[in-house]
Amino acid sequence: MSTSDDLHKKKMATKKAVKDARIAQATEERGVLILLKGNGKGKSSSAIGTMARALGHGKRCAVIQFIKGRNETGEYRFFRDQDNLDWFIMGQGFTWETQDKAQDIEAAQKAWALAEKLLSDDTYDLLVFDEMSYMFKYEYLDVEPVIAALKARPKMQSVIITGRTMATPIQDIADTISVVQDERHAFRQGVKAQAGIEF
Amino acid sequence: MSTSDDLHKKKMATKKAVKDARIAQATEERGVLILLKGNGKGKSSSAIGTMARALGHGKRCAVIQFIKGRNETGEYRFFRDQDNLDWFIMGQGFTWETQDKAQDIEAAQKAWALAEKLLSDDTYDLLVFDEMSYMFKYEYLDVEPVIAALKARPKMQSVIITGRTMATPIQDIADTISVVQDERHAFRQGVKAQAGIEF
Repeated sequence: MSTSDDLHKKKMATKKAVKDARIAQATEERGVLILLKGNGKGKSSSAIGTMARALGHGKRCAVIQFIKGRNETGEYRFFRDQDNLDWFIMGQGFTWETQDKAQDIEAAQKAWALAEKLLSDDTYDLLVFDEMSYMFKYEYLDVEPVIAALKARPKMQSVIITGRTMATPIQDIADTISVVQDERHAFRQGVKAQAGIEF
Repeated sequence: MSTSDDLHKKKMATKKAVKDARIAQATEERGVLILLKGNGKGKSSSAIGTMARALGHGKRCAVIQFIKGRNETGEYRFFRDQDNLDWFIMGQGFTWETQDKAQDIEAAQKAWALAEKLLSDDTYDLLVFDEMSYMFKYEYLDVEPVIAALKARPKMQSVIITGRTMATPIQDIADTISVVQDERHAFRQGVKAQAGIEF
């Protein structure tokens, strides 16, 4: 073995020891609340990717889309027939598409009534509340009952909430927060949004 | 209609006009190179979520995992039997697990030989090169042939590359870059990594 290889081995052994020690310290087993926020591409896709992971381990999942896009999405087409998964499209469209506040509020409240039901059902291992954060930004939903239901949910149930901006009280009780930042986007360089990438 | 509802309608109509104008400007149709970087949770899951979206639209996809984790992942279990998808686990493990530089380099080069083949095959619509960025960080792969192959790929083929840090020449030719930042992680609060969330 060369000196460089030997050095590499030593460096990696040290790195492994540090990582193993950290792993040994994390012993608590419970469901987690994950927030995916920020203005970058990849929040909803990250949530559904994690869901695919959970489905692969035989977990039962549900998705509630709080906002419906204009197209039938590829993810919905792909996942709608999967076992162990319920997918609910509840929103009426982006709020600048509907331009109707009363209708948006009604849709938000229906979506929340369903979400609240799932949050008390321990047969669900993972819930994805996609684009829920807009409901607080536009004041279509009160945050207090949402916090109460999240806190009272079954111990092993995990929840992922996506959306650009997150209400502070939800951030306060989250276990994991990832911020997806837009450093560059093809769209701004004139590339059309395309099936299989953007929707 | 109340004044507040009317105001909302006007505000949203303006927002829609701005958004529609932006959409009208983006007319180019071609495959894109997407980079998902940063230290936050959600890069690989975002890539496979986008892949599910592409599969839902009938696109043909492939994943090359440049680094193999210690466990059989949920995403692999979930996706391995899907139509229109090839999933290749090429890496030997994290480099601090193997502690063997020569073996890691050999694995990286095998993975790249396969990646290069797929980059010249226009029957693939979307390729995911998971954790590829480590190959450049540890100098297991030269970046120049990778750039050349990415540039010469079929026009409609999209590629997603994930990993904490990205080599600058790859960033230079990327269409979309999202940075996933770790603002908080359950692991640091003592919660054990769990099947269906972390792997």
